[in-house]
Amino acid sequence: MTTLDLVQMGQQARAASYALARLTTDQKNALLHSIADALSAQTPAILAANAQDVAQAHANGTDPVWIRDRLDLTQRMAGIIADVRSVAGLPDPVGREYDHKTLPNGLDVRKRRVPLGVLGVIYESRPNVTVDVATLALKTGNAVILRGGSDTLHSNVALVNALHSALAQHGLPAACVQVIASTDRAYVQQLLKLHDYVDMIIPRGGSSLHAFCRENSTIPVITGGIGICHLFVDSSANLAASLPLIHNAKTQRPAVCNALDTLLVHSDVAAAFLPQVVDYLGKDGVRFKAEPRAYALLQGDERVSAAGDGDFDTEWLGLTLGLKVVDSLDDAIAHIRQHSTQHSDGILTETPEHAATFLNAVDSAVVYVNASTRFTDGSALGLGAEVAISTQKLHARGPMALEELTTYKWLVTGQYTSRA
Amino acid sequence: MTTLDLVQMGQQARAASYALARLTTDQKNALLHSIADALSAQTPAILAANAQDVAQAHANGTDPVWIRDRLDLTQRMAGIIADVRSVAGLPDPVGREYDHKTLPNGLDVRKRRVPLGVLGVIYESRPNVTVDVATLALKTGNAVILRGGSDTLHSNVALVNALHSALAQHGLPAACVQVIASTDRAYVQQLLKLHDYVDMIIPRGGSSLHAFCRENSTIPVITGGIGICHLFVDSSANLAASLPLIHNAKTQRPAVCNALDTLLVHSDVAAAFLPQVVDYLGKDGVRFKAEPRAYALLQGDERVSAAGDGDFDTEWLGLTLGLKVVDSLDDAIAHIRQHSTQHSDGILTETPEHAATFLNAVDSAVVYVNASTRFTDGSALGLGAEVAISTQKLHARGPMALEELTTYKWLVTGQYTSRA
Repeated sequence: MTTLDLVQMGQQARAASYALARLTTDQKNALLHSIADALSAQTPAILAANAQDVAQAHANGTDPVWIRDRLDLTQRMAGIIADVRSVAGLPDPVGREYDHKTLPNGLDVRKRRVPLGVLGVIYESRPNVTVDVATLALKTGNAVILRGGSDTLHSNVALVNALHSALAQHGLPAACVQVIASTDRAYVQQLLKLHDYVDMIIPRGGSSLHAFCRENSTIPVITGGIGICHLFVDSSANLAASLPLIHNAKTQRPAVCNALDTLLVHSDVAAAFLPQVVDYLGKDGVRFKAEPRAYALLQGDERVSAAGDGDFDTEWLGLTLGLKVVDSLDDAIAHIRQHSTQHSDGILTETPEHAATFLNAVDSAVVYVNASTRFTDGSALGLGAEVAISTQKLHARGPMALEELTTYKWLVTGQYTSRA
Repeated sequence: MTTLDLVQMGQQARAASYALARLTTDQKNALLHSIADALSAQTPAILAANAQDVAQAHANGTDPVWIRDRLDLTQRMAGIIADVRSVAGLPDPVGREYDHKTLPNGLDVRKRRVPLGVLGVIYESRPNVTVDVATLALKTGNAVILRGGSDTLHSNVALVNALHSALAQHGLPAACVQVIASTDRAYVQQLLKLHDYVDMIIPRGGSSLHAFCRENSTIPVITGGIGICHLFVDSSANLAASLPLIHNAKTQRPAVCNALDTLLVHSDVAAAFLPQVVDYLGKDGVRFKAEPRAYALLQGDERVSAAGDGDFDTEWLGLTLGLKVVDSLDDAIAHIRQHSTQHSDGILTETPEHAATFLNAVDSAVVYVNASTRFTDGSALGLGAEVAISTQKLHARGPMALEELTTYKWLVTGQYTSRA
């Protein structure tokens, strides 16, 4: 294992960021197409490296479904390459000028969108994230330091080799995209202290990774990705139309952060609706944790158990759904304020005033009326890409894509103007 | 000394923030005018409390100039009250909707500006900041927890008493504005860990306070306020017009973060210009630290000494100016990249291409052409107020005012829409 000098990596990333910041949109798009070409040309080497990681994962007794769905690139290279070309086609936020004004003293003042500079991204074992994040960073003129999961080290190094060959073709330093090629967690600690060189830390992983970054980083961290998501079925909701929506929110992809965790049902309709929910979702394997009033309406159904302490503070990430009866919109809002992670929460209602009150009062990154929580996603909300989902409130909230990898600077031009 | 329960303060602030978020702009402005009225009515009590702090400061041997300029409110109450009414007159960023789109699946997607929620502000010994920050927070619908300097405890408590009486008149909880009424620094540590209740930490003070917050906070911190500011005098600059500008940048208010620290002069004009600079600024008490080439041009002038190690990495905060000769625009940019704190840096030039290159290449919060660095200020750049100056790149850069105390949420409305 080589010894890495993280300070040097930070300095080199900073220097590389200056080179990237000078590129035009056309130059950046040409770079991305070269990256796609290099990934195509080097696919055999990438898959050979990936096979090493896959074999090691099997040897470690890792869940084969997980290996197939997340680690194994055999069926995924074409998709990864297509995604790179798709990012090349997205609008470039960098360079846009706005908030232009001329002050009474003649000063011309405007803001310009510019790259953040250097991003640090810490993620778990999905090698496609390596290309995905690097591509979005380069498109916005940022250098990036990547620290992937230890299970994907060979894959990540091979993927970044392809990126480096494309960078070299364009006369750009390899330090535009660096990988911490070590499984030693001490390097993560060091990365989190590089506030002189790194402008933003994006953790992509579970709640423990986010907490670790929040506790240890001296660099601003985009925390998020943890969703305890709620839907409230109001008494006026179209119940028949609500069932497939709730099914979608819970079961379409139960392991992700925008999947539904808790269903709140107005007491006026709970007796009629809750058994329908249990039947509609239960046939696809969903099991239920019900608080006492909901449990009383469902007792005897073997798919339903009594909710225990902390169940409404649990992100299920699987086919479990919490059920609760509430007596009013205000009660629903109060429950959500207490238990939500401010990710994605919605109301199903035919009462416009209730929809408006819910949108006002629920302080989550994405608030829904009559729509599935599953839409909290950069692509699904029309951003064309996604680098993370933020549940903190600074800089960016909800899905983050290209614009959210930029900042602005103020440009002020005078005529040898002094402050009065 | 009472024992404070910071977690309880955080919870109460969060609850208060929900009440504030419901207020209309008119209601918030009426609240601010009531605050101004209460400050007027309670001026005798405030000045009596302030006199205690002033007496204690004198007893502690504190610099009398500092006491007069920063601590003593005797001559400042009218100004503080006028500022509150002025904030009431500013536009309210909260509630604005933007980025509206209708997706092909019929989803209506928009963003809405909303309050951040709860702000934590840690500042040094200027009691006017108490009213200033509280007013800006309330105008944007945020609750705030204030921790002022220990030298101003009596003043701050008296000022917040006035705010509380105005809040009560409007049926709002006192917890909208809370003061950590203790000099125990352990409470600052506790405040910095309240990420469940506080959304943003704003330190207002010196570099050690900013570093302390960065190291210890699990809440996003707006670091900034430290300015090692540069001006580069290009060979084409109008030298006669540059002298008063440089004088303004250095001497108008030398102790603040946007004051000039280093003057870089192109070698083509250094021999002619540097002696003029020393004369023009030297007569007002400025003293100079010159690197070898600049020193050689100025040797024998008692106002000039040789720059030592670290002098170009020092924020002078006084009547000292670093001088350096550079051979090109690129050399100037390289020096700034190495030594700037990314606060405020400028070029003086008659060459438009050099101005454009400088604006592109210098990655500071505010970049100037032919203007004094002293304009980096919320009021001077047309924001009408200022809560802090950010030198980090997330969320807000440069002067922060009302808009920067808000975030957004996504509002998504469908017709019982599921994700495909």
